[in-house]
Amino acid sequence: MNDINVRSTHKQEQIARLDRVAAGLWDEILSTSPVFAAVDAGRVDRKFFALYMLETYQYTLHNARNQALVGVRTLSARPQYVQFCFQHAAEETGHELMALHDFKTLWPEGASFEIPQPLVETEVLIAYLYWISATGNPLQRMGYSFWAESSYKYIMPKLRRLQECLGLSRQQLTFFIAHSDIDAKHAEEIERELSQNCETDADWQAVERVMTTSLRLTGRFLDGVWAEYQRLLAGAPSVYAFLNAHL
Amino acid sequence: MNDINVRSTHKQEQIARLDRVAAGLWDEILSTSPVFAAVDAGRVDRKFFALYMLETYQYTLHNARNQALVGVRTLSARPQYVQFCFQHAAEETGHELMALHDFKTLWPEGASFEIPQPLVETEVLIAYLYWISATGNPLQRMGYSFWAESSYKYIMPKLRRLQECLGLSRQQLTFFIAHSDIDAKHAEEIERELSQNCETDADWQAVERVMTTSLRLTGRFLDGVWAEYQRLLAGAPSVYAFLNAHL
Amino acid sequence: MNDINVRSTHKQEQIARLDRVAAGLWDEILSTSPVFAAVDAGRVDRKFFALYMLETYQYTLHNARNQALVGVRTLSARPQYVQFCFQHAAEETGHELMALHDFKTLWPEGASFEIPQPLVETEVLIAYLYWISATGNPLQRMGYSFWAESSYKYIMPKLRRLQECLGLSRQQLTFFIAHSDIDAKHAEEIERELSQNCETDADWQAVERVMTTSLRLTGRFLDGVWAEYQRLLAGAPSVYAFLNAHL
Amino acid sequence: MNDINVRSTHKQEQIARLDRVAAGLWDEILSTSPVFAAVDAGRVDRKFFALYMLETYQYTLHNARNQALVGVRTLSARPQYVQFCFQHAAEETGHELMALHDFKTLWPEGASFEIPQPLVETEVLIAYLYWISATGNPLQRMGYSFWAESSYKYIMPKLRRLQECLGLSRQQLTFFIAHSDIDAKHAEEIERELSQNCETDADWQAVERVMTTSLRLTGRFLDGVWAEYQRLLAGAPSVYAFLNAHL
Repeated sequence: MNDINVRSTHKQEQIARLDRVAAGLWDEILSTSPVFAAVDAGRVDRKFFALYMLETYQYTLHNARNQALVGVRTLSARPQYVQFCFQHAAEETGHELMALHDFKTLWPEGASFEIPQPLVETEVLIAYLYWISATGNPLQRMGYSFWAESSYKYIMPKLRRLQECLGLSRQQLTFFIAHSDIDAKHAEEIERELSQNCETDADWQAVERVMTTSLRLTGRFLDGVWAEYQRLLAGAPSVYAFLNAHL
Repeated sequence: MNDINVRSTHKQEQIARLDRVAAGLWDEILSTSPVFAAVDAGRVDRKFFALYMLETYQYTLHNARNQALVGVRTLSARPQYVQFCFQHAAEETGHELMALHDFKTLWPEGASFEIPQPLVETEVLIAYLYWISATGNPLQRMGYSFWAESSYKYIMPKLRRLQECLGLSRQQLTFFIAHSDIDAKHAEEIERELSQNCETDADWQAVERVMTTSLRLTGRFLDGVWAEYQRLLAGAPSVYAFLNAHL
Repeated sequence: MNDINVRSTHKQEQIARLDRVAAGLWDEILSTSPVFAAVDAGRVDRKFFALYMLETYQYTLHNARNQALVGVRTLSARPQYVQFCFQHAAEETGHELMALHDFKTLWPEGASFEIPQPLVETEVLIAYLYWISATGNPLQRMGYSFWAESSYKYIMPKLRRLQECLGLSRQQLTFFIAHSDIDAKHAEEIERELSQNCETDADWQAVERVMTTSLRLTGRFLDGVWAEYQRLLAGAPSVYAFLNAHL
Repeated sequence: MNDINVRSTHKQEQIARLDRVAAGLWDEILSTSPVFAAVDAGRVDRKFFALYMLETYQYTLHNARNQALVGVRTLSARPQYVQFCFQHAAEETGHELMALHDFKTLWPEGASFEIPQPLVETEVLIAYLYWISATGNPLQRMGYSFWAESSYKYIMPKLRRLQECLGLSRQQLTFFIAHSDIDAKHAEEIERELSQNCETDADWQAVERVMTTSLRLTGRFLDGVWAEYQRLLAGAPSVYAFLNAHL
């Protein structure tokens, strides 16, 4: 086998490894997160979905921005990678509006609402994604995209169960459904960019570290959503108390 | 005339006004800048072009980045504008390599060189473009694009003269020539984005202020290039002394 | 009671409230964190202390910087508050070297070592502290200082136990001991700055939110240190494997 | 002579060199700037001073912030230098209020006014100071402090003439007079920091480059103030037209 093939095989192995690690973490999250247990058991209602969509809006609002930040702060990367960062950011821009749309399909037309400040778990995820975009190995943010753009295979069964429980149409799940098409394309692009840019073990390790950390923080994000939902159900003070007016 | 037409006419007038102001500034720069006088008189050589292309490389390296920064730091703008920022940045990425290519067509293949630190006038331009991208009215950076993307009508006669004097082929002027096609499209996009996003007098004034200031600083950039070229010709210490080896 | 007294009493109540909330969180961390259980039981050794000091070095390296960042990005705050930010930053600068010193007292003189990349839990804490310093309510970072500068009353018994178990002198605990004097002064300053700057409920809530979140993330930081120490003891791959050479 | 003395002599020579270069630039500015010619000739009035103080307010508002930014973004410098950055920033904080105070001594008590946006020349100076603080050699911002903190010897005769012409008391010149005491101390500190931190030719060159560029941009700042004052006198549209109401 010649050098290019060896190199290419090595890269395929690294990507397969990332896939396995992500699958293991998803297993852990899917089997331990109270959110997914509740979805399986049908113990969620439209308030939960509303809360979940508004918190999803919050971090999604920042995703295009922290993606572009990688290109802004990186002077020495391959121009193709910088271009990918900006292109990918352009394609992610405004996706938060899908989450907002899905919330609004549950909310009476004309009824006012104000999006509250993100929950602290959501804010920690946002903070981390800016940090790893602004500092460290410029390739590492792909660790976030790697799992995020291919997460549908893991969460789709849960989303179907949720859709069924709450009697939601496809048009009320645009964030997840529209996203899944775009993300299939993005997942391919991420693999291509990883192959073309990761050269050293340090590169692959930085990508894996961001992948596992951002996925774990997303697990905590779900825990935060769940805890706030419980507060809401229990009548405890909550920034989401306004949901009780119409849901 | 209905409201939309009044509004649209007002916007066309604002754009026409920007055009007139830019034309006036170009007149001033074209008639007073020693660079253009020297080009007209044929008093420039390949060292000048080399120096000019390397300084052009310097600020162009940052253009995509400061363009994207506008989208990164702007949370409340229309998503379409944020998307334009990232899209435009993606399209500008790597254009510095055209300037570098044009330099290299003059440089013996294999001969080493090191791109020196930008001249201070170039650095002031770079600093200003990051500043107005990072702070102030998020629309204002379009004032830079507005004149930069339509500058060919002003500088083309000078470029032709330069090309003729130095005996350069079209393939040695990729930065200016390839750019002029892309920029025709970009100039249209900028007019569209200005129309769609500028709503208040403050918006138009911020755009005009950045347009005039960045154009004036580009005039100073040319003065800086000229002064360094004079130092080089006079045998004074210069970061560009290395050009003497092969040009 | 006149208005100023009412206002002052209200502020004292808010500070007392922050104190109670911090005390509650400390109770939780002290009673559930495996680190403190192990310290109580004497089940820690010098490797643990070394690892703990090096991770402490990591986040402490950033504390003066994120503190100063608050003043850098805040144009509209009272100048006294901005000055406090810079002054406080100046006083915190270099404190990471105390943690490094304490590590080095355990390490053979002349033996080489390389400080590894921070653990992910440490990095998440660092990321969060920059984020809340760079964005949101400019007063909120005081929520971090509020508990951090008065943490000695909570952790001192544990530190004494640790000191005893490992046979450490006072000169090997400069980070905690020297710090505790400086911090007594800082704790007073923070109370003064809170009183002088917090005017609205939103201000107090922002401070409390950062206080609780940064304290919880510090709990996770301890969990991260503990998990890595367990990996080290178990002979699993660890960035701290180098400690085995001399401890 | 031993090594330390050689090194120390070399550093004294470098500082003497900076001094000579600054003196040369001051000569140029003092002899060519229309502002100083007008002051000499007594052709300025209180409107000029008001305008000058408000523009001075503008850039001074940022000086402590860009000074602190050097420490924020520099992880690898000597801690003493980082501490100097924060300490110096703390001491510069709020100095813009002296410029504002001096303006207000001319303005009728209770009469309203709104500080306009800075002139473009002022903004270019501000942009440059952030840029060189945020990027490049971390020592280079001392090039700005070096001339700024010792500028009184150059401008004092002009200030006395201005004071005389406009009949201003010492209490109306707090920015320049109070500053000159603080700055004498700061000038010494800057020389000490330069000596202790500049090690390579590249360090000294970076400091000199920022010194000359920031001093030249301050010359342009004065030109901008002068041009705006002429517009005001000529009755042309000016953001400072409000001064006509009471001066």
